[in-house]
Amino acid sequence: MIIKDLEDIRNKIDDNDREIITLLKKRQDLVKQAAVAKKNLGLSAYSQDREAYVLSHCEELALENELPKGFLKDVMKRVLRESYKLCSGTDFNFPRMLKEDGDVVIVGGNGGMGRIFANYFENSGYKVFSFGHRGWDKAPEYLKSAKIVIVSVPIDITIDIIKKLSPMLREDQILCDFTSVKAPIVEAMMKYHKGPVLGLHPMFGPDVKSLVKQVVVTVPERDEKASEFLVEQLRIWGATICKCSAKEHDDAMAIIQALRHFSTYSYGTFLQKLAPDLEKLKSLSSPIYRLELMMVGRLFAQDPRLYADIIMSSKHNSDLIENFVNSIKAELEVVKNADVDTFTERFLKTRDFFGKFAEESLAESGSILAKLQDERK
Amino acid sequence: MIIKDLEDIRNKIDDNDREIITLLKKRQDLVKQAAVAKKNLGLSAYSQDREAYVLSHCEELALENELPKGFLKDVMKRVLRESYKLCSGTDFNFPRMLKEDGDVVIVGGNGGMGRIFANYFENSGYKVFSFGHRGWDKAPEYLKSAKIVIVSVPIDITIDIIKKLSPMLREDQILCDFTSVKAPIVEAMMKYHKGPVLGLHPMFGPDVKSLVKQVVVTVPERDEKASEFLVEQLRIWGATICKCSAKEHDDAMAIIQALRHFSTYSYGTFLQKLAPDLEKLKSLSSPIYRLELMMVGRLFAQDPRLYADIIMSSKHNSDLIENFVNSIKAELEVVKNADVDTFTERFLKTRDFFGKFAEESLAESGSILAKLQDERK
Repeated sequence: MIIKDLEDIRNKIDDNDREIITLLKKRQDLVKQAAVAKKNLGLSAYSQDREAYVLSHCEELALENELPKGFLKDVMKRVLRESYKLCSGTDFNFPRMLKEDGDVVIVGGNGGMGRIFANYFENSGYKVFSFGHRGWDKAPEYLKSAKIVIVSVPIDITIDIIKKLSPMLREDQILCDFTSVKAPIVEAMMKYHKGPVLGLHPMFGPDVKSLVKQVVVTVPERDEKASEFLVEQLRIWGATICKCSAKEHDDAMAIIQALRHFSTYSYGTFLQKLAPDLEKLKSLSSPIYRLELMMVGRLFAQDPRLYADIIMSSKHNSDLIENFVNSIKAELEVVKNADVDTFTERFLKTRDFFGKFAEESLAESGSILAKLQDERK
Repeated sequence: MIIKDLEDIRNKIDDNDREIITLLKKRQDLVKQAAVAKKNLGLSAYSQDREAYVLSHCEELALENELPKGFLKDVMKRVLRESYKLCSGTDFNFPRMLKEDGDVVIVGGNGGMGRIFANYFENSGYKVFSFGHRGWDKAPEYLKSAKIVIVSVPIDITIDIIKKLSPMLREDQILCDFTSVKAPIVEAMMKYHKGPVLGLHPMFGPDVKSLVKQVVVTVPERDEKASEFLVEQLRIWGATICKCSAKEHDDAMAIIQALRHFSTYSYGTFLQKLAPDLEKLKSLSSPIYRLELMMVGRLFAQDPRLYADIIMSSKHNSDLIENFVNSIKAELEVVKNADVDTFTERFLKTRDFFGKFAEESLAESGSILAKLQDERK
């Protein structure tokens, strides 16, 4: 065996890679054709059944070719993601779910979230009028033809904007908001508007490439029937709809957002005081710790104001965080006393609480950590 | 446009998928040939240069085919991971770095970690003798031909095992351990053994499929030259070597393991007390929170004893955790006072501490979150 043999094999691999990529290109072109066909048929850009079929086809081919099915599924899921991007709000036309005339007004539509939705509405045959701080003088004119009015402004001014807007609204217009706290906002919308009220909370950031599989929480508060077409429009865009009451939403968000962000923020500020050598820490890390450190690091690349708003948005949040800190203080005692028995007892109780989610998390995070490992050099 | 047209396009996509997968199979076969060639040439299973070349080739082909380069790189990295699995310790033969005679003894070699390394050593031409609780009567015989002696037992009995082993060791034998705390263990090895001492800490769990890109910390404490071949052997297996002193290692691990695990454990036990509807929580989650919840859930699927050992392994850890809890208490005051200014000030200070890592984390975690989104139905 000489080095030349290895080089020959590698050249064959390179040629093979070229062929694979040509076929991936061909696949993208076919997907674009399928997208046009779907639009003309009034179908959603995303079909759960089709995705399930493509992945099961992969499993068959894995068996045929004696390849691990997890491998082919991972590759195909990545390919599918790229296909869904071709059907995003900027590139693709969607069927319009509102059959009568009617436009869309987005107050604060020049923000990241407003822009995404403006794109989607425009590519579904709606006229969209956006305005921010400036442009209020044109509001009465914009609102004339509007069927949907969405308030997409920072949470601390949302109620003021609703108040300011309300004298210009008609009863046939659907009033919506995008804020991350629902009870007080929905209450204000009910108070100041007489027509249909639909609270919305898109559970993603303005950096998403497509709405496929993204969660949108809906809180229908008045005349749910009137806004059915709008919820259907979100579904056609590929979103997963999660309907709940304002209280259910807010209780869950106190945990999902306020408590979790507080915990991450506190870990980060403590690390800053500790000031370890970050490079050394990273080089010594297991994949799991690199991921955890990354989850902390990413928070601090974002807007402090946004996080302060979310964490401090209610007394309920602050009480929850206080309970959390008291609970941590109790866990510190366990550690100081090296009380392995209590630690184990609480650990096992928590395992029971998580149920099968614990095992599922171990499996799924394994695949995420492997991906993180792929990125290493 | 009729439904038949969409079906035709989908059939073409399925045929194309079949072709792609046939080429992926061909690639795997070529990689197996390359692996044999590399072994015969005495090369490592993993070549950083080759990986860099394959990925840059992808970039070229992305440009040629007008495909997003991030997309092709993601696909190719997943393909490369599968190739590295073909070169794991169970399936592949590696060159032997110890040129003279000499075998390997692993005390506790029937545990998960011991078994992985036993596989790798055996497939690199070493005889491996493992024993646990039982089998001590055979130890003197096993040790006769040993060059490398590795202690891979739970941390609380490691020093006892070293003591028990030491009267049977010769000065030409390299003594190693796998524990997650280095200072006291390395000290014991120095005290009870007169020959070369090399502390090792593999930064991964027994579930890894291959050592490629996995970090192994090395703490050479006596006669570093004598164990050079062993470090080289780890490199040939694909591992990333991170050399440091016992103190550097332990200080970093207090943060990487003890503090982080404590924080995750405390969050989990608090959630258990709160007892929210886990299904509702998951369905309402953004990708980032699903990932965070998964990182918490996965801990509780594992062995409480292991985590108690890591968290409570030293007074240093317990002090660090106490400081952390005090720091969290101070952050609670910020929240209770809705003190946005102090929050923002600490936030920005921490952003400075993280430096470019914050932005990098935001970008890299974006790709991880997208992968998590691929998994949704």
